Order: sequence, then C-alpha cells, then structure tokens
Amino acid sequence: MTYLDHAATTPMLPAAREAWLEASAQVGNASALHGAGRRARAIVEEARERLALALGAHPTEVIWTSGGTEADNLALKGLYWARRDHDAALTRVVTSAIEHHAGLDPVRWLAAHEGADAVEVGVDAAGVVDVAGVAAALADAPTALVSVMWANNEVGTVQPVAEVVAAAARHGVPVHSDAIQAVGHLPLHFADSGLATLALSAHKVGGPVGVGALLVRRDARLTPVVHGGGQERSVRSGTLDPAGAIAAAVAVEEAVAAMEGEAARLRALQADLEARIGSAVDRVTVSGPPPGPGRLPGIVHLVAPGAAGEAMLYVLDSHGVEVSNGSACVAGVVQASHVVAAMGRSDADAASTLRISMGATTTADDLDALMAVLPDAVARARRVANR
Amino acid sequence: MTYLDHAATTPMLPAAREAWLEASAQVGNASALHGAGRRARAIVEEARERLALALGAHPTEVIWTSGGTEADNLALKGLYWARRDHDAALTRVVTSAIEHHAGLDPVRWLAAHEGADAVEVGVDAAGVVDVAGVAAALADAPTALVSVMWANNEVGTVQPVAEVVAAAARHGVPVHSDAIQAVGHLPLHFADSGLATLALSAHKVGGPVGVGALLVRRDARLTPVVHGGGQERSVRSGTLDPAGAIAAAVAVEEAVAAMEGEAARLRALQADLEARIGSAVDRVTVSGPPPGPGRLPGIVHLVAPGAAGEAMLYVLDSHGVEVSNGSACVAGVVQASHVVAAMGRSDADAASTLRISMGATTTADDLDALMAVLPDAVARARRVANR
Repeated sequence: MTYLDHAATTPMLPAAREAWLEASAQVGNASALHGAGRRARAIVEEARERLALALGAHPTEVIWTSGGTEADNLALKGLYWARRDHDAALTRVVTSAIEHHAGLDPVRWLAAHEGADAVEVGVDAAGVVDVAGVAAALADAPTALVSVMWANNEVGTVQPVAEVVAAAARHGVPVHSDAIQAVGHLPLHFADSGLATLALSAHKVGGPVGVGALLVRRDARLTPVVHGGGQERSVRSGTLDPAGAIAAAVAVEEAVAAMEGEAARLRALQADLEARIGSAVDRVTVSGPPPGPGRLPGIVHLVAPGAAGEAMLYVLDSHGVEVSNGSACVAGVVQASHVVAAMGRSDADAASTLRISMGATTTADDLDALMAVLPDAVARARRVANR
Repeated sequence: MTYLDHAATTPMLPAAREAWLEASAQVGNASALHGAGRRARAIVEEARERLALALGAHPTEVIWTSGGTEADNLALKGLYWARRDHDAALTRVVTSAIEHHAGLDPVRWLAAHEGADAVEVGVDAAGVVDVAGVAAALADAPTALVSVMWANNEVGTVQPVAEVVAAAARHGVPVHSDAIQAVGHLPLHFADSGLATLALSAHKVGGPVGVGALLVRRDARLTPVVHGGGQERSVRSGTLDPAGAIAAAVAVEEAVAAMEGEAARLRALQADLEARIGSAVDRVTVSGPPPGPGRLPGIVHLVAPGAAGEAMLYVLDSHGVEVSNGSACVAGVVQASHVVAAMGRSDADAASTLRISMGATTTADDLDALMAVLPDAVARARRVANR
C-alpha cells in the first residue's frame, strides 16, 4: 500500500500512542477534587503547557476541543456572537472563498440563521487570498471578525495571514485562522501572529483523531458553542480527556521539533515529484505557488483537464496507491473543488483534480509507486470522460 | 486507593482498550474513498451497528459526538432551532430542575440568547420529576421540545421518562433524554422509549473519554451545532474517529450484556452500605427512592446536615477514599447542589452532600475501606463547620 493522503490523516506517532496508553490506564475525572482527579488534571495541564510552548502560546490560551472542525466552529460562532452581542452593528464576517468546509459552513450558517453579513473574499490563480479585498470588506461595514486559513488543505497555498491581521487591526477586528494543515509543517508562533484565535487538529500531525484545540488570545471573548459543566473556563464544556490531550501535545511537539528537517526533506520530494509529473503526464498542471515557503511542503495538487478526479482516484486505488481528490467527500460523492474554482479554473477542471499529500512516513519509494501508475490513471480517466 | 467515583468516570474496560489500540494502529480518514478510508469507515459503521443493537436503535439513528455534553447540546439546541425555524411560535422548552449542567446550561443559553421560553419543572422530595408539571407546561404554550434525564447523576433517581413522553406525544412534541448515567446500568430500548433523542457517553461505561453519541429518531430534525465537512448526514461534522467509536461500542455492549448481574450485585452492595451508614453515622440521610428500580444501582448519595461537603471529601481523600460531592466542581470550587435544593432541602443541606458511586471494579472491600473512615469524616466536617 502506498499511502499518499497524509493531509487527510497521518499515522499516529509511536510516542503519541504511548502517551495515550499510559494516560488512559489511569482513572479519574479531571474535574474531581480527589487524588485520582488531581492526577488526571495534572496530565491535562502538562499537555496544555507543552502544546502552548510548541506553538508560542500561553497555557491559558489553549482550549481543548474534539478536533479542528469544532475549534473552527467555536472561533467563528463564538467570536461572532460575542462581538455582535456587544455591539449589534457588528454583523459582517469576512472570510476567504478557499476555506475548508469547517471554516466556510459555520459562516454560511451564521449568515443564513444568525444575521451575519458574510463576505467571501477571492483568491488569485495561485490560491492566495486577496488582502486588498479583505481590507475593502473591512472598510465597508462594521465587522465582527475576519477568518483566513493559514495554509489551504487542498492546494497547499500559504496565506498572507500577517497582512490580513494588519488590515484587521486597523479596524480593531479580531482574526481567526484555521491552521489545521500548518501546525507542525510551517513555522508558527501564536503570540507573534497577532491572531485572536487559531484552530488545530491532533490527527493531522500524528496525534489521535477526536482531539484538537483552539488557541484563544487572552483578550478575545467567545460565546460557547457547547455549554455544560464549565470546563475550559466555561468556553468549552465536557469531561476533559487526559489521554487525548497528552497524546495531542506529544504529537505536536514532535512534529514541531522535526519540522525544519522534515520540511526540507518533503520539499525535495515535492520538487522531484513535480518534475517527474511534468515529463511523464500530458497536460497536467500543478496548482499553487512553486515549492517553497509559499506552499505546504507535503502537498502536490494536480489539475488534469479532461480526467474525472474520481476515476483517477479509483484507478490509483486499484493499484494500491491512496491519494485524494482534495475536495470534500460526503457519502462517497466527489464534488468539484470550490478551491480550484475560486482560483479561476473551469467547473470541469475543478472536478479533475488529484491531491498527493506526503508525511513523516513518505519515502522516494512511495513516489516511484505513484509514478508507475499515474500516467496510465490520467489517460484512463480521460478515456472514461470521453466515452 | 479506594475509588468510589464511578459516576464521574470509570476505568476503561480491557476489551475497549484493545479495540481502540487495534483501530488506532490503522491509518485512513473514514471520509476518504481509497482502501484505507474504506477500512476506517468500516470500523465506524461496525461500531455504529453494535452500539445501535445494544440500545434498541437503528444504526442510522446513531450520531457520533465528542461525548455526552456535546450530545446534549446537539439535541437541545438542534431540536430547538429546527422546530422554531419551522414554526416561530414554538419557543417553549420544558425541562427539569435536576438536569446535569450539560442539560440545564444549553437551555438557559437558548433562553438568554435565542428567544426560548424555558420552564424548569420541579421534583418531589425523592427527586422524581413532576409529570403533571410537565403536562401543564406543555398545555400552556406551543412547545419546541421537552428534556428530562433518564436517571439523575447526583442522587440516582430514575425519572418517569415514559410518562413524560406520553404527555409530550399528546402535543406532538419531541422529547430528549440525557441517559448518560443510565446506559449500561438500566434497561433501555431507544425504539420503545418513544424519545426523539437520547444522549450517552462512552467513558461512563468503560469506554474512552472524548466519545459519545446522540441517538436520533429517524423523523427528528436537528440543526447542527458543529458545521463542516458534512459527516454524520451533516448533523455533526468533524473527522470520524474509528478507534473511539469501536471502543465506545465495545464498552456499551459489554456493560449492557453484564447489566442484569451487575445491577443485582451493586444493589446488594448499595443496600448493605446504606444499612451500615444508618447505624454508624449520626443524622445522615440517603437521598432518593429506596434501592430498587427507582434508583441507579451504583449510587449512594448522602446529606449530612452540618458537615461541609468539601471537608468530608478532603478527609476521605486524605485516607485514600475517593468520592464526590455530587455537584459540579469548576476550578476546584464546590457549589451547593441544585439537585438537592430542588428536592426541597435547605441551601446548607445542599452543600453538605456526598456521592458514593460504585462500578464494575467495586467490591465489598471498597465499602469496608469507606466505612472505616466515613463516620470520622462526617464528624470532623461538622466540627469544622461549627468552628
């Protein structure tokens, strides 16, 4: 099996598994006052400190969640409600057209259901958000929040978050960033970023599924999305998960520690793969900026005009090569990519995509296995489309 | 260590740990279309079927969540929004005064923030919800939903859910029940219950923390609380957690299979403990109905007038006996119990409580260890209070 879908999920790191196992063998609710409870709480707090340290945050800025999607929802709905409740005029929400559905759909719901005036700012052909468009949207109406992801999950384009933060700061508007693909892959320092909130997910960097966090700057106010026992300073209720938290912290820590070397290694693989694709596969374009600081090191995203993405994926899978088409798959239905469409490609091209995503376990052998079948997969998918 | 706080969390069952370990060793996003994705999806679907079968539900009625608190939030907010959006007059939410904070706080937020007209129906001295009060609240105003827990988490009183469902059915109103303490401890059949939704948590029955589910009757419509990639028929987005799901299903299955024998065993321990407390500790009352079908088999809840709950807890903990005061502890602050207050006790009594909760690992030795220190703990806590 050749697994090249690390951006969807990546194998759990042995150290993270060990941490989970050790912590889950203990009993104790971290909100209980007895010894078992205090030991459980100590694990959660150690995890909080280690995660914060790895990402340039203060421990009190870490809010544990069930994953990146919940973290995005908490940031977007939480900031919107808190800001609008403070000043009813603050209904504008500025976001980008290339957010993950976890970033897009909460905002669309706020617009449909909670009176938000949502503006989705476009991107250029490389998938970079139009900062002037963000500034114009901010100048145009009282704004509750801006949300721009750190790096796109489909094409890998790194976004000008610092410029977005600067534009928003001129209006005193908080900025959220979905950094789910960036954490552990790109240099990232929460305090230096100027962000109000930042979402991350453990399983994207070798931690368990079902654990994530929202980093929340100390002056940011959030209305909870999940109410209850009052854990996490009442911002996010629910029994704290010591095993999940420590496994997440260990994974993020390891990924951040290995990041520089891993990024260089993956960028070399990335450049090599792109050169081979260019010479071996007809009429295929690589999306986004060239390999380098403008793109995630692990992602190679292709548009193969005339080849249905789903067909390419099935042919590759039949040869044991596991990639993604890069867009949301719900109930097995492949949809055209809203990201590729926003980059100015046709709807047909947006449905003719392939995302190859590499991670810690990826070697040159994996790319050889991919290249042994990719040209044929594209050709066959084109024949299917032309039938 | 004598652990008698199983209602807060109970040790993970070996079979659940094994299931988690095996599933988490595989890589694959359950929404991906390739082989690894399909294998991950198969684990989630197997878990869904096994959980459903154990609880008298259909697999399509299982919505995975991050735990009981999120499941309660999804039911309460989801049903409220969906019903009110369908008919703006449906703003009443009828619930009970003794719900867990995960059941109370979402409703209070809906009242404060989303226009809900919330009615908290009282209970009798044993902690049984006043069904006539529920019926009166339903007759009084167009109602979005009713929410009454299956069994109370502090005192253990089993609630007349069937009667509540019958009262609500006369008005065509859906009923939610927080069954987080009931699953695996009391007979429970979702289809027979007539409930629209039922919340459960894995770690209360030997599964991992961070996993739960909401059972949702097929005709019930819910507005999502967490939006994103569209998993779980778009009712709850977020990467599916195969390891968490299968571990949860295994734990619920084992608890349900062992339930009859375990309930009898725990009820014998419960009756024995209550007799010993009655003869060894002055002026202490056991809360709720007598041991039997009206009370959870694992819970013995005491009110010790004049003894601060926190002081009793600390004395017991200093002797290695871990119990709870039974009310929410946020940041280490013990609050008077809203449940005990609703049962008609004074505020002072509501702060003089102790919850002893037993589980699968509890033996007569644990109760001996408790009884060796409980009389002294109560006496010392009374001396502290009288200082």
